[in-house]
Amino acid sequence: MPTRTKDRILDVTADLFRQYGFTGTGMKQIVAAANAPFGSLYHYFPGGKEELGVAVIHRSGEMYFELFETVVEAAPDLVSGVRDFFAGAALVLRDTDYADACPIATVALEVASRSEPLRQATAEVFESWVTRAAARLADHGVPDDRAREVAILIISALEGAFILCRASRTTEALDVAGAAATAAVRSALPDA
Amino acid sequence: MPTRTKDRILDVTADLFRQYGFTGTGMKQIVAAANAPFGSLYHYFPGGKEELGVAVIHRSGEMYFELFETVVEAAPDLVSGVRDFFAGAALVLRDTDYADACPIATVALEVASRSEPLRQATAEVFESWVTRAAARLADHGVPDDRAREVAILIISALEGAFILCRASRTTEALDVAGAAATAAVRSALPDA
Repeated sequence: MPTRTKDRILDVTADLFRQYGFTGTGMKQIVAAANAPFGSLYHYFPGGKEELGVAVIHRSGEMYFELFETVVEAAPDLVSGVRDFFAGAALVLRDTDYADACPIATVALEVASRSEPLRQATAEVFESWVTRAAARLADHGVPDDRAREVAILIISALEGAFILCRASRTTEALDVAGAAATAAVRSALPDA
Repeated sequence: MPTRTKDRILDVTADLFRQYGFTGTGMKQIVAAANAPFGSLYHYFPGGKEELGVAVIHRSGEMYFELFETVVEAAPDLVSGVRDFFAGAALVLRDTDYADACPIATVALEVASRSEPLRQATAEVFESWVTRAAARLADHGVPDDRAREVAILIISALEGAFILCRASRTTEALDVAGAAATAAVRSALPDA
């Protein structure tokens, strides 16, 4: 089924980007990992690796935010939800041998100075995370300006901690960032 | 002069890594930018790109921390110093068209799953930043455990903000992260 092939290409490319980045992931590697014919890759993504990259960034960004929403909604309150999300990220990172961090951060840094369509895709994903996390905070009574700041802080702390954790092969930075993000949310809430 | 050639190779490679990452930087590109003969690259770095990468990571990490110390020491107090450092990073980023962020973050993410010597070099640099920033906080009376946490938080927030800023081509995330880092230092100090 064609749609399944396309999804499989997107999924394996996301995995490869997470571990090796955009530049370090080859088209042959994608085709092999997706068990798809080479032609199907250019059939679905006539613009080649850049077009595939843009699609992967948007899809991964969407899936990652859905994961955040799922974790937050399963928690008894927003503060616990943010804490649980960082704790879950630390767990996943350790269980995947420090491979499975943010699906788009590596690509975002690599392509920022090189590909305008890819840079723009990463910018759109981060902005959608910020906007939607801020909206959730605003729903809980945090003023709009402050909500945006706290959202940016949560995402910055998470992304920066991923860098330190992948380098050190420990979850220490995620633990620290998670505690700080949780405290930031707690103190921003009107009933703090 | 040979030492100058070696330094020039290290400097241009650091610049290229900052913008394009490790994988995206080719040996030919390095030789051209350094205006050095190809042979001199393998003379100074017989282990090739990986050995050069390790040297660049250590050197860039050291220079970046020295910049931090210079900024902090020029400030009237530690809180202002941290605020100034983030403000300076934002200025440099904007002035370099969002190219000149952290010298090792891109490499750290790219190589974490691929090259053990490079991963280890990035881990050593981050650990040295954490240890030395924490020591500085401890000198101002912050208890050791808390000093380490605040140091990790400052570095995580800085690194994560760089990702968002390079993607969005705005300094908003650095402004937010800088305010949060400054507040974290202020509240950790014993006279807070």
